[in-house]
Amino acid sequence: MIRLQFSLELAYSVHTPSADFFFNFHPAHTPQQTVMSENLTVNQTAAIWSVEQDASGQRNMRLQAQTGPLKLNYQATVEISHYSDDPMQIAEVPLYQLPLDALRYIYPSRYCQSDRLAGFAYDLFGHLPPGYARAQAVCDWVQQHVKFRSNSSCGTTSAIDTMVDCVGVCRDFAHLMIALCRAINLPARFVTGTDYGADPALGPPDFHAYVEVYLGGRWYMFDPSGTAIPMGMMRLATGRDAADAAFATIFGGVTSEAPRIEMVAEHNGAQWQLPVHTDQGLSTSVV
Amino acid sequence: MIRLQFSLELAYSVHTPSADFFFNFHPAHTPQQTVMSENLTVNQTAAIWSVEQDASGQRNMRLQAQTGPLKLNYQATVEISHYSDDPMQIAEVPLYQLPLDALRYIYPSRYCQSDRLAGFAYDLFGHLPPGYARAQAVCDWVQQHVKFRSNSSCGTTSAIDTMVDCVGVCRDFAHLMIALCRAINLPARFVTGTDYGADPALGPPDFHAYVEVYLGGRWYMFDPSGTAIPMGMMRLATGRDAADAAFATIFGGVTSEAPRIEMVAEHNGAQWQLPVHTDQGLSTSVV
Amino acid sequence: MIRLQFSLELAYSVHTPSADFFFNFHPAHTPQQTVMSENLTVNQTAAIWSVEQDASGQRNMRLQAQTGPLKLNYQATVEISHYSDDPMQIAEVPLYQLPLDALRYIYPSRYCQSDRLAGFAYDLFGHLPPGYARAQAVCDWVQQHVKFRSNSSCGTTSAIDTMVDCVGVCRDFAHLMIALCRAINLPARFVTGTDYGADPALGPPDFHAYVEVYLGGRWYMFDPSGTAIPMGMMRLATGRDAADAAFATIFGGVTSEAPRIEMVAEHNGAQWQLPVHTDQGLSTSVV
Amino acid sequence: MIRLQFSLELAYSVHTPSADFFFNFHPAHTPQQTVMSENLTVNQTAAIWSVEQDASGQRNMRLQAQTGPLKLNYQATVEISHYSDDPMQIAEVPLYQLPLDALRYIYPSRYCQSDRLAGFAYDLFGHLPPGYARAQAVCDWVQQHVKFRSNSSCGTTSAIDTMVDCVGVCRDFAHLMIALCRAINLPARFVTGTDYGADPALGPPDFHAYVEVYLGGRWYMFDPSGTAIPMGMMRLATGRDAADAAFATIFGGVTSEAPRIEMVAEHNGAQWQLPVHTDQGLSTSVV
Repeated sequence: MIRLQFSLELAYSVHTPSADFFFNFHPAHTPQQTVMSENLTVNQTAAIWSVEQDASGQRNMRLQAQTGPLKLNYQATVEISHYSDDPMQIAEVPLYQLPLDALRYIYPSRYCQSDRLAGFAYDLFGHLPPGYARAQAVCDWVQQHVKFRSNSSCGTTSAIDTMVDCVGVCRDFAHLMIALCRAINLPARFVTGTDYGADPALGPPDFHAYVEVYLGGRWYMFDPSGTAIPMGMMRLATGRDAADAAFATIFGGVTSEAPRIEMVAEHNGAQWQLPVHTDQGLSTSVV
Repeated sequence: MIRLQFSLELAYSVHTPSADFFFNFHPAHTPQQTVMSENLTVNQTAAIWSVEQDASGQRNMRLQAQTGPLKLNYQATVEISHYSDDPMQIAEVPLYQLPLDALRYIYPSRYCQSDRLAGFAYDLFGHLPPGYARAQAVCDWVQQHVKFRSNSSCGTTSAIDTMVDCVGVCRDFAHLMIALCRAINLPARFVTGTDYGADPALGPPDFHAYVEVYLGGRWYMFDPSGTAIPMGMMRLATGRDAADAAFATIFGGVTSEAPRIEMVAEHNGAQWQLPVHTDQGLSTSVV
Repeated sequence: MIRLQFSLELAYSVHTPSADFFFNFHPAHTPQQTVMSENLTVNQTAAIWSVEQDASGQRNMRLQAQTGPLKLNYQATVEISHYSDDPMQIAEVPLYQLPLDALRYIYPSRYCQSDRLAGFAYDLFGHLPPGYARAQAVCDWVQQHVKFRSNSSCGTTSAIDTMVDCVGVCRDFAHLMIALCRAINLPARFVTGTDYGADPALGPPDFHAYVEVYLGGRWYMFDPSGTAIPMGMMRLATGRDAADAAFATIFGGVTSEAPRIEMVAEHNGAQWQLPVHTDQGLSTSVV
Repeated sequence: MIRLQFSLELAYSVHTPSADFFFNFHPAHTPQQTVMSENLTVNQTAAIWSVEQDASGQRNMRLQAQTGPLKLNYQATVEISHYSDDPMQIAEVPLYQLPLDALRYIYPSRYCQSDRLAGFAYDLFGHLPPGYARAQAVCDWVQQHVKFRSNSSCGTTSAIDTMVDCVGVCRDFAHLMIALCRAINLPARFVTGTDYGADPALGPPDFHAYVEVYLGGRWYMFDPSGTAIPMGMMRLATGRDAADAAFATIFGGVTSEAPRIEMVAEHNGAQWQLPVHTDQGLSTSVV
């Protein structure tokens, strides 16, 4: 079991009379991921907010703030007990048997134009036997094809752009892997989470973007950017792509400071282990 | 009340050992739209299929067919009793108060890159007072800006393409209107339906693509292509755009014939009226 | 030496009071390609036209026609005596030494966005030793990556589209090869010519699009679509891409019929040979 | 007559054994623009370079530098005696009569996809009487449609991007105006020059991008960004767009500092005047 101490500070300046924020920074509730305790403070006493959990366990927060500085402090203790399985035993689910909720993740989306990449994807992966290993092959190809470079992409960069430009950040790796998976009829979705264990050369702990692929009746995690330790990634939100799984979407005249994130894995040798790399398939949910 | 007799013939040839079809040709069940009776026949006795209704009342059919001809015949009698209201009385819903289900329709999607069109949309519509009339202004602008031309677009044509190229079919008009609405924070979604009352010059009754905008706590219908009589449009499926609301999505080696559609409005002068153009806002559902 | 009998019929209907045509169907004059005789007839006696040869030997025709049918008949006898060399002996020209006229063919153009493809091209070809063989490697890769399919592209299809979609016609193969060559600093240009020896399955002789790369102080021919016999290709026009090397650019309300082309290689066993495939590098000009 | 003192410092660090630079910072030689004197110093004594003037009077410099710092200092005294005319008297040149050199500027190019914008351009400008005023209408529309914002675009931003995004820098304004002009068959080209008289809020004198349109047998200047005084703009290079008219194109591992430019207009009340805004059409060349 992984036990994470998550701490987050967000700071904004609101320049308009009010501004609306839609946040996804609360860890999701899933059978494998439990929020043991949490605490949120907001500096604006007049701000109104609410947190609403949806069917996937995602916790959507909305907040309306007034002119002036807005600061949020959030701490949570989260325990993750991954479902893990031997990759050789994890099969693809035939299209006909996909649940409706998974089925909608085979369609193209804003940043994952899988319709355009069908030819490319079939050339690369069409001949591989179906199963977890095929999703892993897509993940490996993306990691090899794309170079990680900070600030190399922007908010409108799509999977096709990343395929062509061969450069990006974690969100771009995720979009390209998702698009290629969907192109070969593998349901794949975007996850906004945190990146425990990322290469210190990339800076302190941060939000992270990775991928879940629907295999064997579950969503399995993949980290195509290869920058984090999957066992230590904590799920905040899922969606078709970054368009509907951002950690913050803001409406109004607002300037932002960089979020400050701390992430500590507690370990005591017995009950709680440090996240490590593994060859097992890891999943945190069936929906 | 509108009473429609809907008849549909679909004909395919399956060239691979099997093929999977995901259909959305069943009329949706909503408080305003009732399927009084329906009948489906499939020529392949070995085909397996199921129909599953989701929370929005959409009825998703999946079917697995074998090599050879596949023919579906479907008839339904549908009654539509629109909710209608005075456009002057229909307000926009503040972002903070949008239900989660509506909120996801303000994000960009595959064919509706509202993130790119924000500047354009604010220049054109940002100064207008919020409300139904503003959505109508977007609808009118799209109808004026884009020329209807058969076969002028293809499966990858997006709202930006249509904005630039100024030409398209009903699906393209819908995508552009949706993208512009979302760009000014109006939730908007794609509807696949039927086009009772379309200009005979455009051919016999057909599937149709139009738009619903979330206003005053309901989804109101708009027909930016201007080719049909909204009161006679029957909802089959809704989605973010054509990527997830197509009437048929097919996996496998399949060739298709053009679908044959018949649509008759029964009328008896009292209980059942013929669809006519109206200045009222029309809605068929709150979800 | 190759001796070609070229015959062309073009038929249009002009619907506006007048229409302007810019043609490039006259074979270019180069030290290696000689027009022995030619004859042009135009059915409209009131049409005005002129043919102007530019520095590259390209013969640009402009014609102004009136309402009604327009028919052009053109015949030419052309002799081509290729410059040929051993690929192992053909070196790349260092950037600093490129003549200005060749230099402008390393920049991106409408359909050949080499700026975007630099990362991709360096991954694929950056490690190869410079020289003719590297251009050939680009040609081979394009031929392998892209599937030839009639009507799979349109007038706005670019090299990036073809890279992504993996399908196209000869013009698309040419654009992708050009973009990849420029991305590794090889001057490359688009040629509109004819396709003697094309696979009969693709239909009768036709206009053809292929590529010339500047190597060893000359322009060498490459046929990335692999559909013709390079020795039998006849050059009409060159340009950065199809935007400025089309065989016909038309302004006005005009409908076109498919051009009718005949191409016969005379051969007598001694002086004139039939075009055949060769491993030699073939060039028809230094400018 | 305008008399400009132009001073330029360029500073680079070359990290590879050598690097190739193609510069266009020498003022062009045209009948209206005369370089009275100039002086260039290069810090690397081993660097080799040459300057070659082409038919348009553009002076293309190539330079090969070695590892280490590279510094160029250039000063020139330039006199510009514009050809000017009453806009009402400046007609469009019929397509059939365009010289070949002008004709090539009606075709789409890398950043100016006029082929895509034909519908849009005809809707906006098709009904206007031909002539200088129509080009001015395009210029005015672009200035009104696009917001100037520093760093809002990047090297791959095209006219279609700017049309959609409604934001850009001088180069983007120029690309959009060029694309719209070509779309209505007006030859238009990109000019890299200097921006004497720019709004001090935009910083010190800098390189500038503007447009020339072929009208009445000459190239007339337009400044769609509206940030400079056209009478004070000095031409360095022309091309189809920024792809082939950049002031510097660099091959090799090189980091750059911002160029330092000084631009002083000498004036003595009689022979030499200060540049001022004018309603006249201004031209610096016929080719």
